Amino acid sequence: MILHPSFDTNEKGHLTVCGYDAVDLAKEHGTPAYILDTDAVRGMCRMYKRAFREHFGEDSFPVYAGKALCYKNLYRIITQEGMFADCVSSGELYTASKAGFPMENVFFHGNNKTDYDLQYALALGVGYIVVDSVDELNALEAVCRETSMDADILIRVTPGIDPHTHKKIITGSVDSKFGSAIETGQAMKITELALSKERIHLKGFHCHVGSQIFDIEPFADACSIMLGFIKTVRGRTGFEAAMLNIGGGFGVRYTDKDPEIDYEANIAALGKRISALCLELGVKKPALFMEPGRSIVAAAGATLYKCGSVKEIPGFRNYVSVDGGMPDNPRYALYQAEYTAVNASKAKDPAEYECTLGGRCCESGDLLAEGIKIAKPERGDIIAVLVTGAYNFSMASNYNRIPRPPVIEVSKEKVFCSVRRQTFTDITALDI
Amino acid sequence: MILHPSFDTNEKGHLTVCGYDAVDLAKEHGTPAYILDTDAVRGMCRMYKRAFREHFGEDSFPVYAGKALCYKNLYRIITQEGMFADCVSSGELYTASKAGFPMENVFFHGNNKTDYDLQYALALGVGYIVVDSVDELNALEAVCRETSMDADILIRVTPGIDPHTHKKIITGSVDSKFGSAIETGQAMKITELALSKERIHLKGFHCHVGSQIFDIEPFADACSIMLGFIKTVRGRTGFEAAMLNIGGGFGVRYTDKDPEIDYEANIAALGKRISALCLELGVKKPALFMEPGRSIVAAAGATLYKCGSVKEIPGFRNYVSVDGGMPDNPRYALYQAEYTAVNASKAKDPAEYECTLGGRCCESGDLLAEGIKIAKPERGDIIAVLVTGAYNFSMASNYNRIPRPPVIEVSKEKVFCSVRRQTFTDITALDI
Repeated sequence: MILHPSFDTNEKGHLTVCGYDAVDLAKEHGTPAYILDTDAVRGMCRMYKRAFREHFGEDSFPVYAGKALCYKNLYRIITQEGMFADCVSSGELYTASKAGFPMENVFFHGNNKTDYDLQYALALGVGYIVVDSVDELNALEAVCRETSMDADILIRVTPGIDPHTHKKIITGSVDSKFGSAIETGQAMKITELALSKERIHLKGFHCHVGSQIFDIEPFADACSIMLGFIKTVRGRTGFEAAMLNIGGGFGVRYTDKDPEIDYEANIAALGKRISALCLELGVKKPALFMEPGRSIVAAAGATLYKCGSVKEIPGFRNYVSVDGGMPDNPRYALYQAEYTAVNASKAKDPAEYECTLGGRCCESGDLLAEGIKIAKPERGDIIAVLVTGAYNFSMASNYNRIPRPPVIEVSKEKVFCSVRRQTFTDITALDI
Repeated sequence: MILHPSFDTNEKGHLTVCGYDAVDLAKEHGTPAYILDTDAVRGMCRMYKRAFREHFGEDSFPVYAGKALCYKNLYRIITQEGMFADCVSSGELYTASKAGFPMENVFFHGNNKTDYDLQYALALGVGYIVVDSVDELNALEAVCRETSMDADILIRVTPGIDPHTHKKIITGSVDSKFGSAIETGQAMKITELALSKERIHLKGFHCHVGSQIFDIEPFADACSIMLGFIKTVRGRTGFEAAMLNIGGGFGVRYTDKDPEIDYEANIAALGKRISALCLELGVKKPALFMEPGRSIVAAAGATLYKCGSVKEIPGFRNYVSVDGGMPDNPRYALYQAEYTAVNASKAKDPAEYECTLGGRCCESGDLLAEGIKIAKPERGDIIAVLVTGAYNFSMASNYNRIPRPPVIEVSKEKVFCSVRRQTFTDITALDI
C-alpha cells in the first residue's frame, strides 16, 4: 500500500491502482488520465452512511459535495449508495438530474444564485435551497410567487470559528462572502424574515467551518454555537429547527506528512458531543447532515502522466516535465498544495531522485510538486500523482488549449471510461 | 476614457466598450460575457508590425503569443494583420490551422512536446520548432527520421536575467523548467548537438525574460547576453544565427497604479540598443522577433457580470457577489492579480463604495478583487471587470460545472459572437 489502500505495486515493479497496472492503464487509455477507484469511493459512502445512522440518528445522512468531483456516472454511484447531494450550481443540478439522482435529496448551495438558478432548482424539485443572503431570500420569494411553487429552505449561517485554532468569533469566519453571521445579529434577522415569507418553509440551518480538518473540535464548536442559535431562535420566534447541516471539511492524507484519520471514530465522538450538547441546552436533537466531498473521492484518484524530459541544472535543481500540469491539476499553482508522486514505471526502485515536477504549460508557475523524491525517470516513463480524486477534474481548464484528460473508473469488477478524453474538435466546438 | 481607449461612459451613465453600451450588451448576450474590442486588437498588431519593421529591420516580425487568448476568429484577425504566431500546444496549432493561419509563420513552443506534438507540427508545416531540451532534440530527430521530414529549429536558452532587478545570472532565471542555460554550458552543448543532427536545421535562438515589464532594460540585457552567445557560438562552431527571438513580456496597465507605457517608443529605443550591440560585438544583426500576447489583447477586453447580492458585514467589509468568478478569471486566486472594476449600470456615479468582489463559486478564495471602489450596486446591476482580454478566456475552467462565457467581439463595424456560450449539454457532453 502506498499512502492509501487503492495504491500498491505489482511483480513488474509498476504502480497499481485498485490492482490494475498503472503503466498498462496509461498505454491503453493514453496520458494524462485520471484514474478513479470506485470501490474506494463506494466504501467511503457506505462508511459515512452507516456511521451517520449509528452516531447521529436515523434521519441523519451524509451529503456528497459534488463540487469535489462531478460527472454523470459519479452521480449514478452516489445515487446507488443512497447519499444525499450538495449541488452548487445549475450545472451540477443538471448533471445530477441527468444521472437520475433523486432531486428531493439535494441541498442547493451558492452565494450567488441567479433567478434562473432558483427557478431551475424549483422546477427540478430540489429538496432544500440553502439561502445565503437577504437578497437571495427576496429573489426566491419572487420566484415562488411567479411560479406558484413552494420552497423548503435552510439558512446559511456563519458561526465564527477558525477551524485550525478553534477560536470562536474570529475575523476569518464572520468575514465571509457566504451566509449571515450570528455575531452581528444578521443571522437572526434573515431567520425572522424567512419565517415571515409565504411559500417559503424554513427547515433548519447550515454552516461550514473549513476544509482539511483532522479532528472533531471545530465541528463540535460549530455544533455548540449552532445548537445555541437554534435555542435562541426558538425562544424568540417559536420556530425549532428540525435540520442542522454542518457542512464539509474532513481532511484527507495527501502526503505522509499529513496525519491518518479514522473517520468513523471521529463521527462517533462527534455524535456523543452533539447528544450531550442537546441535553445540556434542552434542544430537540435535529437531523444532522454533513457534506463530505474530498474525503469520499480524493484518495480514490490518481493522475497518470508521461515524462517528456529530465533536465538537470547543475547547482540548481532537476526538472522532470510531464504531459499535463495546471490545466488538469491547478492546486499547486493555486494553493501550493502538496502531493505524492510515484514513478509508476519504476515504483519499486528507491525513490531517491529529488526533483521538481513541471507541467507542460508555457508558464513558470505550472508545477505539480517541488522537492519531491521519485525513482529517476526518463522520457516515456509513467509518472503518477496520487490522491487527485478531488478538485482536479472539477477544476480543470483548457489553458494552452490542452484537452481535458478522461476519467477512467476502475473497480474489482471492471475498467470503465466514464468521461472520455476531450479532442481538439471538442475544444474548438464553440468557436465560430 | 477609463484606463484604456476601449472604455468610456455614455449619456445614460453606462459603461461603453468600443462605443457600445455595456448594459445593453449584457442584456442581449447574457452574463457573464467576455467583450473584446477587436479594433483595439488590430491597432496593437499594426503598431507592433510598423514599429518592428522600422526599428528592428525588414525581416523582423511581432509574433502573437496565442496562449493569451486563443480561438478561431482571433487567429483569423491575426492572419489578416500579418502577424507571426507563437503556439504552445497541438491544441493551439489545431486552432491556428483551422483558422487558415499560414503555419510557416508559427513558432512552436513548450517544455514538454510529446512525440505526437512534434509529428503534428511537422505535418502541419510549422515554421520553427523552438527546442527546449536535449530529450526533445533527440525525440525530434527520431520523428524526422521516421517521417522523412526536415525541421527548422530555434533553441530556447535561459540568459539568466531577473526582469525586475535587471541582475544578470540570478537563480530565478537559470533555475527554470524552460530551456538550457548559457551559464552552465548547457546552451552551448545543445547547440553543438543540434548542429550535428541530420534533418534538423538550426536557425537561431529564443529566450524569454518575464512578463509585465514596463521598460526596455531587461530586453536590452537579454539581447546583450544573447548576441554575445551568438558570437561565442560562431567562434566555436562557425554557425551564425540569422534569427533571434527574445520572447514576450511588455506590461499592461490593469489599474491606475500601473504605469502607462509607450510601446512604440520602447521598441525604438530597444532597436537602437540592438544595432549598437551588434556593431560593438561585430555580430551580423539577426532578424528580431518578440512575442507580445497580453499587450495585444488584455486592454481590449472586459468581462460583464450581473450583481446577485450585496452583503454588508458591520465592522468587517462589504461583499458584492457576481455571477462569474474564478472559473472565468482565475487570476486573482492564482496571482492576486489586481483589476479595475466598474458598476457599468452606474458608471458616472461616484465610485465610493468600498467592497470585495466575490465570485459565485463555493470556495472562499473565489474573489475577483478586494478593497476596490465602485458605485454602490444592487442585485441586477451590471458589473464590469476591465482589461480581461488576456489569460481569462484562455485559463477558464468549468469549476462548479459553471458554463464558460461567450466571447463577444465588438468593433466600429459590428458586434459578433465569436465563441458561443457553453451550455449544460456541452459541459456534460463527454460524460458517458
